[in-house]
Amino acid sequence: MEKSELLYEGKGKKLFKIAGDDTQLIAEFKDDLTAFNAQKKSQEEGKGVLNNEISTIIFNEVMKHGIETHFIEKLNDRDMLVKKVDIIPIEVVVRNVATGSLSKRLGIEDGKILPFTLVEFYYKEDALNDPIINDDHAIIMELVDDRAELDVLRELGKKVNDILLPYFDSINLRLIDFKLEFGKTADGKIILADEISPDSCRFWDKDTNEKLDKDRFRQDMGGVKVAYETVRDRILGK
Amino acid sequence: MEKSELLYEGKGKKLFKIAGDDTQLIAEFKDDLTAFNAQKKSQEEGKGVLNNEISTIIFNEVMKHGIETHFIEKLNDRDMLVKKVDIIPIEVVVRNVATGSLSKRLGIEDGKILPFTLVEFYYKEDALNDPIINDDHAIIMELVDDRAELDVLRELGKKVNDILLPYFDSINLRLIDFKLEFGKTADGKIILADEISPDSCRFWDKDTNEKLDKDRFRQDMGGVKVAYETVRDRILGK
Repeated sequence: MEKSELLYEGKGKKLFKIAGDDTQLIAEFKDDLTAFNAQKKSQEEGKGVLNNEISTIIFNEVMKHGIETHFIEKLNDRDMLVKKVDIIPIEVVVRNVATGSLSKRLGIEDGKILPFTLVEFYYKEDALNDPIINDDHAIIMELVDDRAELDVLRELGKKVNDILLPYFDSINLRLIDFKLEFGKTADGKIILADEISPDSCRFWDKDTNEKLDKDRFRQDMGGVKVAYETVRDRILGK
Repeated sequence: MEKSELLYEGKGKKLFKIAGDDTQLIAEFKDDLTAFNAQKKSQEEGKGVLNNEISTIIFNEVMKHGIETHFIEKLNDRDMLVKKVDIIPIEVVVRNVATGSLSKRLGIEDGKILPFTLVEFYYKEDALNDPIINDDHAIIMELVDDRAELDVLRELGKKVNDILLPYFDSINLRLIDFKLEFGKTADGKIILADEISPDSCRFWDKDTNEKLDKDRFRQDMGGVKVAYETVRDRILGK
């Protein structure tokens, strides 16, 4: 199983083709840290290894509960074998607690527990700063085929939340919010793709509300790697 | 019918109470021009008179087609008698053609005819720059009582569009987009409020695509008053 051509380089991962294989790709988790649409950049040695490890476990967890994902297997420290899908250019953000851009944009108190699971769609387009969109926009820009697909994204986002909320609660982490990306398989099925890690989720310690995710980088709090390791260790039950 | 206490001063209108009357208000149309959330300000003598005249005719037009509004009667050049309502803090934007913030934010070509009537909700809150919201946000922030009310706003927006598109087309104007505000009557009915004017609509000349609305002010094109007069004169069949 060897990497051939680099198909795509994102902010957190590289995607490589596999020679003679049109159905699978290798995702390599990078150490790059970016925030605010990559206006802020850094590196954290070993972050990619941690995210590969965490994502592997979380993908297995949601798959155990019937969610289809692009995950096939962890190949080594940094590499994950995944199904090749056409990524839907919509970031599906699922929120349990108001913080970050939600609080800032709409004036909702930081830390406020939301009365229900909030789902937001953002158009995945760096050049435009990933703007928030509604259903009409998604259809007009042909980001999906029809409104039923938007309902599928919303429902899958909520299902993943329903699985992960108790999971993280059991290891003393509050799942504040997270971003999911989905892809379409060759036969048109929508499955979970990308990663689930402290790069894409906000985790607060259940007792202290200490931030254990990329907000430590966004907000210059330091201790980024220790936070990611804490999440990994709790997942592993260490 | 005399103005008593000033109840509210907005960017384009003042709302006055009427002594001894709890069900009606007087809306006074101002000459102030504002754009980009009032970061840009000016005055245009006679603009308020034109908007009062235009809004009066357009409110009558939509009411003729069964849309309930807060409009009661035009009192004089600048003043309109309206029903007192609780304004729903959602700006309902209805678009037929991409331009302005839609084109800029989502990269949709300026002037592109949309495949269907696009409806957007914005949270009416100057301090936050009227941010765009989705249905979940509106419910979480309790801007409406339930999701059915959001559907009512969407449907009323589209109905007004269905009435006004052919109306303006018949006087050689393209109705590009417009912003509506709605209010609730004492018995909880949602009715159209605010104004319908070149301050709140974009009109392009059908033959030349010349802008005949507040974009002339936003874009420093000059000829603001002449544009508003052109709209008024076409409405009057002059």
